[in-house]
Amino acid sequence: MRGVSIIGIGKTKFGVFPDRSLKSLIAEAGKKALIDARIDASMIQAFYLGNFAATGFNRQNHVAAYAATAIGLPNVPATRFEAACASSGAALREAVIAVGAGLYDFVLVGGVEKMNSVDTPRVTEYLAQAADWETEAKMGATFPSMFALMATRHMFEYGTTREQISQVAVKNHANGAKNPDAHMQKEISLEKAATSTVLVAEPLNLYDCSLITDGAAALVVCSSDLAKQYSNIPVDVIGHGQASDLFCMYQKKDITRFEATIAAGRRAYEMAKVSPSDIDVVEVHDCFTIAEIIAIEDLGFCKKGQGGPFTIEGMTAIGGKIPVNTSGGLKSKGHPVGATGVAQVAELVLQLRGQAGPRQVQDAEIALAHNLGGSGASCVVHILQKRAE
Amino acid sequence: MRGVSIIGIGKTKFGVFPDRSLKSLIAEAGKKALIDARIDASMIQAFYLGNFAATGFNRQNHVAAYAATAIGLPNVPATRFEAACASSGAALREAVIAVGAGLYDFVLVGGVEKMNSVDTPRVTEYLAQAADWETEAKMGATFPSMFALMATRHMFEYGTTREQISQVAVKNHANGAKNPDAHMQKEISLEKAATSTVLVAEPLNLYDCSLITDGAAALVVCSSDLAKQYSNIPVDVIGHGQASDLFCMYQKKDITRFEATIAAGRRAYEMAKVSPSDIDVVEVHDCFTIAEIIAIEDLGFCKKGQGGPFTIEGMTAIGGKIPVNTSGGLKSKGHPVGATGVAQVAELVLQLRGQAGPRQVQDAEIALAHNLGGSGASCVVHILQKRAE
Repeated sequence: MRGVSIIGIGKTKFGVFPDRSLKSLIAEAGKKALIDARIDASMIQAFYLGNFAATGFNRQNHVAAYAATAIGLPNVPATRFEAACASSGAALREAVIAVGAGLYDFVLVGGVEKMNSVDTPRVTEYLAQAADWETEAKMGATFPSMFALMATRHMFEYGTTREQISQVAVKNHANGAKNPDAHMQKEISLEKAATSTVLVAEPLNLYDCSLITDGAAALVVCSSDLAKQYSNIPVDVIGHGQASDLFCMYQKKDITRFEATIAAGRRAYEMAKVSPSDIDVVEVHDCFTIAEIIAIEDLGFCKKGQGGPFTIEGMTAIGGKIPVNTSGGLKSKGHPVGATGVAQVAELVLQLRGQAGPRQVQDAEIALAHNLGGSGASCVVHILQKRAE
Repeated sequence: MRGVSIIGIGKTKFGVFPDRSLKSLIAEAGKKALIDARIDASMIQAFYLGNFAATGFNRQNHVAAYAATAIGLPNVPATRFEAACASSGAALREAVIAVGAGLYDFVLVGGVEKMNSVDTPRVTEYLAQAADWETEAKMGATFPSMFALMATRHMFEYGTTREQISQVAVKNHANGAKNPDAHMQKEISLEKAATSTVLVAEPLNLYDCSLITDGAAALVVCSSDLAKQYSNIPVDVIGHGQASDLFCMYQKKDITRFEATIAAGRRAYEMAKVSPSDIDVVEVHDCFTIAEIIAIEDLGFCKKGQGGPFTIEGMTAIGGKIPVNTSGGLKSKGHPVGATGVAQVAELVLQLRGQAGPRQVQDAEIALAHNLGGSGASCVVHILQKRAE
């Protein structure tokens, strides 16, 4: 397959936007990506959209054709991809495959979710539909409760501490405070995060949980041989991997790791011919703080069980050994579910272009995005590289 | 890109199954397809699933990973595709691209919908979410009403008659009566269909509307060079096309044609290097009778405006010039939305293999499947050819 590059990114501000429609969000992100890529909508040959649950949040299905009209795309193939919280990671990967196959030269990939249209119990119910309704969600096993079990087990097996887990939130809020598009742009203290009595699902408290966010993001993907004509700093997609795992948490042998992350990571590393030590900057799926600790272990940035110490020692901070979630992550930037995978990649493109402003990682050349769905039943990983001059 | 073939099909019976779960339906279809292809689940390298609205019908999202576990697939990439009623047509096409690109040798493609879990008003609401909620569905513009407008305009512009429209239902019920998996296996008379006073949305009556159906279907797709090892009669995917159109009906210049069908058909014909006169058997998306008449015009099987006379003259019956919807179509076989696109192709594979029993089209060698979404905003077309001995 031929090389594939990213030449344009677009994103809305992430936050709570009661006055904005679903279509206005994706239209803004899509149009911004086209402008950033310096191409006209008429050049786009296909549209790949990640969305998780507009049916619930917005009573809107058939969202890809809906969004294509809102963006002003010609009558291109328009398909929605859904893999729970990994929806737009999956959309991007399938777009990379199609461009790599030579079927299209220019493709727009989007992700969108407008969650703040229904009340919180409804949000919780729609999110819980990413778990097995019959045996999990219907019984009350929502995602906070499932990730709480993972955290408890991780603490038991590896001695991970309350402070280590909270440090994920402290770091991600510090990063998000430097991201003008982030939902929450404020720092928090370790003491406040670690001692909060606002429990969501013990041991996870308010500061361990990602946000209910509205937002959209988009990318222009094109063949690498055309990329240089449209971008001074094209970013090449040098590896990708996707995997699934047994759907229900009770079916898994070990809830302190995500087999789908391990498999997707391995496939992406093999395709990119790089190892974890080659990666300069990472966005991982911190839907809950414990998820970031497990992700950096599963992806090989530290040893199994060492994610907690690795984090509290500052290794994942900007300036540390391997900066993780410079955007602020799902915790601080926000988590509009269907937009998250594409938004992660948009952040990494900024980093590789050297356009990340106060949160820039110096000399970043290779980056990795990790997008997880459900209690780990879906995972998509992309590895990106700044084009050599 | 290399050649891609279909070597296995599986389907459940279509009907109303209050006692069956969503997962049991897709598991049955998926496992049957693997058996038909004579391969083990462990050989499958990716899973592509079409589903429209399990979130509404079954409170279940993240359906691809959910189904992968139910089928017993290894930890392969598992992604759900949604393009309204064209969901599993879109899933199949993306699978064909990925296998054609050389990324996978064996892929399972599924489609599933379990609609009879909620009451009819809810079904209507979830279906209406394939239209624009803000400007169409919320105002009461459900799909029967929109296709009724199309029928009225088609009658006005081309002189299409009540009997011509009803003949679509008569033919499809006659075909469905020969399909043991069809939801409704009974013939109806033209008089009964044309004079029914059970109006759904004038002029469309009860006999003009497809069914609310539970069911699943699956296909094993593989590279053409491997196909002969697993199937005595592999069916090659020689062309595919997908297109979108302006999302809302009021945005369209002409509601007696589907621009997405015309574009998707043209792309598929060009790729396959065939013309409409080369096609031996067709499945089109007869969500309503008028939709079949418009589809056979848009796909070039008769002249624009002549779909009505063409149908009543028997041209689209088995034994006619170009048999359409030998399976019974959505009208008689049933329309479990997310399963429909894959089920259409499964029927055509049976026809090309010569395994369609009493509804067999003699000497069928090239076939076309047409899968439409919404009020025509999404369309996917596949062209299949029986492998020469």
